[in-house]
Amino acid sequence: MRIAIDAMGGDHAPRAHVDSALAAAAEWPDTQLILVGNPEKIQPLLGSDAPGNISIEPASEVIESDDEPVKAVRRKADSSMVVAGRMVKEGRADAMISSGNTGALMATGLLVVGRMAGIERPGLAAMFPTLDNRGLLALDMGANMDAKPEQLLQYALMGSIYRSKVHGIAKPRIGLLNVGTEAAKGNELTKAAFDLFEQAPINFVGNVEARDVLEGVCDVIVCDGFSGNILLKALEGAASSIFKLLREELTSSLKAKLAAAVLKPSFRRVRDRMDYNEYNGAPLLGIKGLVVKGHGSSDAKAMKTAIRQTRTAIGNRLIASLADEFSGK
Amino acid sequence: MRIAIDAMGGDHAPRAHVDSALAAAAEWPDTQLILVGNPEKIQPLLGSDAPGNISIEPASEVIESDDEPVKAVRRKADSSMVVAGRMVKEGRADAMISSGNTGALMATGLLVVGRMAGIERPGLAAMFPTLDNRGLLALDMGANMDAKPEQLLQYALMGSIYRSKVHGIAKPRIGLLNVGTEAAKGNELTKAAFDLFEQAPINFVGNVEARDVLEGVCDVIVCDGFSGNILLKALEGAASSIFKLLREELTSSLKAKLAAAVLKPSFRRVRDRMDYNEYNGAPLLGIKGLVVKGHGSSDAKAMKTAIRQTRTAIGNRLIASLADEFSGK
Repeated sequence: MRIAIDAMGGDHAPRAHVDSALAAAAEWPDTQLILVGNPEKIQPLLGSDAPGNISIEPASEVIESDDEPVKAVRRKADSSMVVAGRMVKEGRADAMISSGNTGALMATGLLVVGRMAGIERPGLAAMFPTLDNRGLLALDMGANMDAKPEQLLQYALMGSIYRSKVHGIAKPRIGLLNVGTEAAKGNELTKAAFDLFEQAPINFVGNVEARDVLEGVCDVIVCDGFSGNILLKALEGAASSIFKLLREELTSSLKAKLAAAVLKPSFRRVRDRMDYNEYNGAPLLGIKGLVVKGHGSSDAKAMKTAIRQTRTAIGNRLIASLADEFSGK
Repeated sequence: MRIAIDAMGGDHAPRAHVDSALAAAAEWPDTQLILVGNPEKIQPLLGSDAPGNISIEPASEVIESDDEPVKAVRRKADSSMVVAGRMVKEGRADAMISSGNTGALMATGLLVVGRMAGIERPGLAAMFPTLDNRGLLALDMGANMDAKPEQLLQYALMGSIYRSKVHGIAKPRIGLLNVGTEAAKGNELTKAAFDLFEQAPINFVGNVEARDVLEGVCDVIVCDGFSGNILLKALEGAASSIFKLLREELTSSLKAKLAAAVLKPSFRRVRDRMDYNEYNGAPLLGIKGLVVKGHGSSDAKAMKTAIRQTRTAIGNRLIASLADEFSGK
């Protein structure tokens, strides 16, 4: 299998991408890693004795994090992200991964790779850590701000297929993000979606409140892109604030510092279990090809996780399964 | 001033309400605390030598946390919550506080006390803790699930007046909850609201992302009731999950336990700084009288905080200021 990696996207580009490609190439000799970007920046990091299953695809431009997404994708036709998308479109790669500008990656999916037949609006997924360590696929995280009930149902179906194909869950439990667990709760969108979900061929477990999302009550949580973005960023913000306060308090006296030093491994384990990078590699679902988003702050370890997820998705024919589900609709 | 307290609402009723009334009565002799509820349950806790500024208003029924809100308010006319609302309506109390069923309290506000002239839809506010300890007023937290841009503007105006009158902030900074900080970001609702906010006589500081809410970047954050509920519960859920993981890790070995014991005061301070009860007493804004919501888990200390907030709101003529603002509209 062949995976195109946007080597210029994200906070630690291109170093993290080269390092993760080297590690992945060694672990999975059957996988061709194609680093897309400026060869002058990639080659020196790669060294002269790179393994045969790593190659470079030249791209002269870079989409920056503050570029306006659609404009950037249209104008920077030779950017690493767009070139990677084109490789998927033309069948020269089985998937692409990028940690760059999220909006631009969604635009690349739609405008370069193309929407999957039968899908109204693609959705951006994210994996959340959960207390039971199973993780949770949440979508949409911001591709579709004003979603319709039917679009939420497509997210539920796509999320179910993803969890089953990529994570091997037999009957993924689907939850609907809502303000209460009772059936009648919510806004117009979630009330209509609730009715659709009940009729659909999914394992619908009902409404799920934001406070229970991390508890492991479902395998997929579905929401519109606006709410999903609020959810994701609120969870991240709360974690960041708490760790900031802890750091402040635990360095406020010598006694606290000494005790905190003993607990360093414990704190690290808590941080790791709440770390979104541990589940790196979220798909843009509803695109004709496999487009995977890495966290912007991905390091080499996180990128290797994204590559592993992508390999599994390719190996289990995720895109073909999704296309089968939606082709007749 | 006279404050009616729903003595039967919340997890720690009536004990927490009696205890907080006793403490408040001693600290503020100018304030009449009216405990509304079953005298047979309240009187024994109050004792025989209760101060003269505490009284009991009998109410024979209780609205339970799982009662359907509107139905309960209509049918339980002699419930502690409805009776307290009626006292405000009839001018026998200057405000009411309840820690009971939130939906029922909103219904009491609308159906018993009545909507303020000029207000389309009342909004439920909450105070969030922030890293800079100034706190943040967030609304709407769930009164109005499908809000319109004009209603968000009313929330902004009411929030601004509340922060100025109750917390003494000269020019409260108003933020709009959104998925990005740029002006063009968001869904149809927030894009339209952004334009309205820019034209309004408020200190609008722009869009605020959920991850920055706790950082103290604004004094009021405005959102629709659905997003507000997701935000509030995601923040609470993340904090609860992190503390759960910490407890697990810090009791996993004897060494960890010993070090954690030394740090107990530090952990408590972090917990307190993230504790929503520290800012107890959020108003239902857009009601003719002052209706204040206490956290369901309020203890006596949290309830006394709610009473303090309510006193300040009465003293600074919050309701009259709001009525002035909206009466001509």
